[in-house]
Amino acid sequence: MTAADPAHLPAGSARRSPGRPDLPAGSARRSPGRPDLPAGSARPHVLAVAGSDPSGAAGLHADLRTLFSLGVHGMGVVSAVTAQNSVAVSGIWALPAAAVRGQLDAVLSDVRVDAVKTGMLASAQIVADVAEVLAGPVAAGIPLVVDPVGVASTGRSLVEPAAVGALVTDLLRLATVVTPNLDEVQQLTGVAVGDSPEVRAADLRRAADAMLALGPRWALVKGGHLPPDEDALDLLSDGTSVLELRSPRLPARHTRGTGCTLASAVAAHLARGLDVPAAVRAAKAYVTGAIAGGYGIGAGPGPVDQGWQGAGGAGR
Amino acid sequence: MTAADPAHLPAGSARRSPGRPDLPAGSARRSPGRPDLPAGSARPHVLAVAGSDPSGAAGLHADLRTLFSLGVHGMGVVSAVTAQNSVAVSGIWALPAAAVRGQLDAVLSDVRVDAVKTGMLASAQIVADVAEVLAGPVAAGIPLVVDPVGVASTGRSLVEPAAVGALVTDLLRLATVVTPNLDEVQQLTGVAVGDSPEVRAADLRRAADAMLALGPRWALVKGGHLPPDEDALDLLSDGTSVLELRSPRLPARHTRGTGCTLASAVAAHLARGLDVPAAVRAAKAYVTGAIAGGYGIGAGPGPVDQGWQGAGGAGR
Repeated sequence: MTAADPAHLPAGSARRSPGRPDLPAGSARRSPGRPDLPAGSARPHVLAVAGSDPSGAAGLHADLRTLFSLGVHGMGVVSAVTAQNSVAVSGIWALPAAAVRGQLDAVLSDVRVDAVKTGMLASAQIVADVAEVLAGPVAAGIPLVVDPVGVASTGRSLVEPAAVGALVTDLLRLATVVTPNLDEVQQLTGVAVGDSPEVRAADLRRAADAMLALGPRWALVKGGHLPPDEDALDLLSDGTSVLELRSPRLPARHTRGTGCTLASAVAAHLARGLDVPAAVRAAKAYVTGAIAGGYGIGAGPGPVDQGWQGAGGAGR
Repeated sequence: MTAADPAHLPAGSARRSPGRPDLPAGSARRSPGRPDLPAGSARPHVLAVAGSDPSGAAGLHADLRTLFSLGVHGMGVVSAVTAQNSVAVSGIWALPAAAVRGQLDAVLSDVRVDAVKTGMLASAQIVADVAEVLAGPVAAGIPLVVDPVGVASTGRSLVEPAAVGALVTDLLRLATVVTPNLDEVQQLTGVAVGDSPEVRAADLRRAADAMLALGPRWALVKGGHLPPDEDALDLLSDGTSVLELRSPRLPARHTRGTGCTLASAVAAHLARGLDVPAAVRAAKAYVTGAIAGGYGIGAGPGPVDQGWQGAGGAGR
C-alpha cells in the first residue's frame, strides 16, 4: 500500500481541489447527470460508506465489486468491521466516529464524488456525522442512496438501537433513494406488510408512503421477503410516480450481498447520469443476474456474483 | 448488508467445514495447485489482510479489484483504517488485535482459502496474531504473499516501529514470497541498493539474499525506485534460481496501489496453481498494464486500473 507523496507532484499541482487536472476547466463539479462531459471522459466516482465482511460476500466488498463491474471508480469509507462468514456474525467493531469523519473528509476534500451509497452505519454518532458531512454534497445535487441496514438476517443487530432513530431523524431526509426490505420498513416506520398476496401491492404502497414521510425523494421497497410462491415484487415510489417492479423469484441459495449490490448499482447508475426510475430498473436487472450467478464459498449461503456480465460489465 | 441466516439452510447443512457442498467429497482441502479439480470448477479463494484507503486507490480496495479481475473470490481482513487521499495520509486507526483475529477465524473456520496476501499490518500484536493464525494453513501448503508495507511514500509510517521487527521475527519465515521495494529492503535488512546502474544488479542480488535470510522461500525485490533513466528491474530469487525481470519504465503519474496490486496478483496466480516464477511473471504483466491504465481522481497521483483487461480478464 503506497500513499501519495506530494513531493512527487509537479510544482503547483499539490492542491487543486476538487478539480481534475485531466478534465477541462469548469467540468470538475457537475450535477450528477454528467450530460456536459464528452463521451469517453473519466469514469464517475462513487463513494460507499459501509461495514466490511471479511468473507467477501456482503458490505464493502459487495459494494466495491459492484461499482467496479459497472465501470465507476469505487471508494469506501469503513464504518464498522465485522467478523462473519456464511453461517454467522461473530463480532462487530464500530469505528470511532472520528475515523469515519476523517475518512469522509479525506475523500471529499480531494475527489469529485458523483454519488454516495450508505449501508451499515453502526452507531447513532456515525449516522449523525455522516449526515452532517453529506448535507453539503447532497444540497449541491450529489445523489445519495441509503440502504437502511439494521438487523442481520441471522437476527443479530448490526447497529446499535439508537442508530435506527438517527437514520430517521438525520439521514433519510437527505436520501435521493432509500432501499429498505420489509423488515427495515417495519423497523423504521412500524408498517407491516402482510403475507397474503391480495393485500401485498396495497401494503407495499402503504410501506412506501410511510418511508417517504421520513423525507427521502424516492423509496424502493423490496418485497423479496414475501411468500415464495410468486414473483418478487418491489415498489418504487416518489409519492406521485409508482412503479411495480416484478422479477422472477429465483430458486437461489447464494444470495449474500444482494441488498448491498442493489443499492450500489443504483448509485452507480445515478452517477452515470440515469434518473431514479431508470437507475433502479438497471440495478434490478443487474442484481437479478448476480443472484443467478451466486456461488458457494462455505457451509452457508454464498455471495451473488457481481461479475456475471464479465469483469467489464455494463458501461465499461 | 445481509448476514447469512443458518435458519435458511437445509437441515443438516449448517456446519460442514471446510468443504463445499458443490464440490465432490475429498476435494475441499487441496494443495494450491488445484490439479485435482476438473476444469470449470469453482473459482479459487484468496484472502487479503490489509489496510483500507477510503479514496479507493491503495490497500484493500486495490487488492479486491485485483482479485476480482483475475477471476478469484477475494476476501479481506481489515487490519487498519486510514484517512487518506491522493495527496496525504491524514489518519490511521489500527483495528484491535482481537478484531483482526476474529475476522481471520471467521474466514478460516468456514471458507477454503487457496492463498493469502498480507499488506499493511499496523502493530506488532497484529503481526504476531496473523503469523500465529496463518502458521497452520501455511504448513498445510497454502501460499502466503507478504507485502512488507512500512513507510508510506509520503514519509508517514503506516505501522508502529515494533511492527517491522515483528515482521522479521514472526511473519517473513512463513512467506512463500515477500515483495519489498528498496526502502523496505533497507528497513528490514539494512541493505541499501546503490543508485548507479553498474552496481544495481549485484546490489539487487545482495538485497534478495538478505531478504531470504529472514526466512521466506522467495524474495521479489522491486527496483522500481531506481533512477528513472533505465528500464525497471526487479529481481526474483529463492537463493538458487535468480530471475531478472525487466519492464519498460512507464512515464506514469497515476501509480497508487501498484504494490498492493502486484502482491495480490501474485497471490491470485498462486491460488490458480501457477508456480512462483510463473505467478510473478503473470503478475508483473498484469500490473504493467494496470499502471499504463492509471487514472486521476484528485489533486495528486491516482490509482492504477485493475480493470485494464476489460471484460474477461486473465482466466475468467
